[in-house]
Amino acid sequence: MHKELIQIQEVGPRDGLQNESVILDTQSKIKLIDMLADAGLKRIESSSFVSPKYVPQLGDAEEVTKSIIGKRDGIIYTSLVPNVKGAQRALQSGAKNLAVFVSASEAHNRANVNMSIDESMAQLEKVAEKIHESKGTLRGYIVTSFGCPYQGEVPVETVIKISDRYAEMGASEIALGDTTGMANPEQVKRLVSKMLERLDGKAKLAVHFHDTRGMALANVYAAFTSGVRIFDSAIGGVGGCPFAPGATGNVATEDMVHMFTCMGYDTGINFDKLIEVNHFLQEKLGKTLPAYLGKVSPVWKSEVTKIK
Amino acid sequence: MHKELIQIQEVGPRDGLQNESVILDTQSKIKLIDMLADAGLKRIESSSFVSPKYVPQLGDAEEVTKSIIGKRDGIIYTSLVPNVKGAQRALQSGAKNLAVFVSASEAHNRANVNMSIDESMAQLEKVAEKIHESKGTLRGYIVTSFGCPYQGEVPVETVIKISDRYAEMGASEIALGDTTGMANPEQVKRLVSKMLERLDGKAKLAVHFHDTRGMALANVYAAFTSGVRIFDSAIGGVGGCPFAPGATGNVATEDMVHMFTCMGYDTGINFDKLIEVNHFLQEKLGKTLPAYLGKVSPVWKSEVTKIK
Repeated sequence: MHKELIQIQEVGPRDGLQNESVILDTQSKIKLIDMLADAGLKRIESSSFVSPKYVPQLGDAEEVTKSIIGKRDGIIYTSLVPNVKGAQRALQSGAKNLAVFVSASEAHNRANVNMSIDESMAQLEKVAEKIHESKGTLRGYIVTSFGCPYQGEVPVETVIKISDRYAEMGASEIALGDTTGMANPEQVKRLVSKMLERLDGKAKLAVHFHDTRGMALANVYAAFTSGVRIFDSAIGGVGGCPFAPGATGNVATEDMVHMFTCMGYDTGINFDKLIEVNHFLQEKLGKTLPAYLGKVSPVWKSEVTKIK
Repeated sequence: MHKELIQIQEVGPRDGLQNESVILDTQSKIKLIDMLADAGLKRIESSSFVSPKYVPQLGDAEEVTKSIIGKRDGIIYTSLVPNVKGAQRALQSGAKNLAVFVSASEAHNRANVNMSIDESMAQLEKVAEKIHESKGTLRGYIVTSFGCPYQGEVPVETVIKISDRYAEMGASEIALGDTTGMANPEQVKRLVSKMLERLDGKAKLAVHFHDTRGMALANVYAAFTSGVRIFDSAIGGVGGCPFAPGATGNVATEDMVHMFTCMGYDTGINFDKLIEVNHFLQEKLGKTLPAYLGKVSPVWKSEVTKIK
């Protein structure tokens, strides 16, 4: 077993919950985040400081953030922020690790935040300044990196240009988002290889897949064989993007941890505790979650089934 | 686009239907097979000559086989047979391409056919003789090649030993079955590479994945990058194994064709017609099928979605 090689950014409490019709109460969110930490997740995207008008599901970002920050050692809690105002709210709530986002597709960025990519980047530079003033860290999402539901193909050059600007503004990590599940493994291999070469260690590279068309784990595997070691996923496979039609959930943390474990890579996660979180969230949301694991036994337990 | 590099063995009418609780009437089965051929599938596993006592879903194997054989040029229809008696019934019905099976797990083979692997292989040698006498072709399945729900790990040596015996008895193709979805991509890469080297062109190699734990497309991709070009799948993702607890459907033909198409490999299949088959089968079985595609648009159509 290769120890702790894989880092998982759990985005369920943020990317997951923001697209659920059931709004979890604040205490349940905090319990969810605590359970994820208990299961061994070291990086948790805990909320989003976007306007509650657009994402009422995460209207309690301050309360959640204040409650979890500093509670446990060794856990990196990330807050998503859309602009300077959101960054100020997040920093005031005690957040140290902030994530920002821009689309690699002009059409999607326009639909998402009503700005051009350049306008977004100019604003994110100001956000980066705020973060650095507070000695925080910056994660830069490039959403629709692998395709856009509005414009189709997304130029690789745009992804690289955004990535360069993120690196210039001191991002410690860049996450390629496949917001509506359009990526395929060969494309992932090509883009990820190009990006790793381009970044050359200046910032770390993460991938963020959605399972809209069933290819998420294949894409995770392709990114892994190309050298990526940081993977976003959401407990239960919940999530999506409220501004991208057809977007379904993130790749499920259970399914991804299970695959890596089967392949001999230790993610540092207690699988049984992870399944407990799945069941907790399923009960709270009152629906069956997309994750495969949680419904079926992991491979390493399947042999206990007895012959009838 | 790389032309026709990928060969798909459609196993829905056999592996798929044998595990469904709804029994399709004979005419619907024939229509299903015809629609699959219309969609461009060149290899269709059309029925199984196992005892109707065990698999009542395929009790009309003779009628289905007689009706489809010779109807169209260029389609390879395969019949699964468990023993000499089944082979005789298949050959008498006009079948030319027969598939046989044995488990790489002693425990699973015992549960499946109540014989040891050696006893099975001795019997399959007689089946092979019958097939060769009739100038037919032989496909040899090695089921539970990647793990067994009863005994857990399956020795690679057993898989190789069975494969060698299949090659000796003149099998033109050997299919590694992941009967209960226990394979992971790294394991697939290792076993497939070893098998391709061992077979050295004496017989072709196919892979047969089930999506029990969401890894089927990742496994398809791993097999593809390792050199495999023949892939089993079932329309809609229907299927399973009635004698393997927890087995769910085969990897869905729609999802696999979609992934290969996205990667730039032409499977020779008309995707829109394939989705028509999905809808036909869904209606006949009266349930939502596991396939992702059929529920969501393919990547190449997602750009037509308009901004709200």
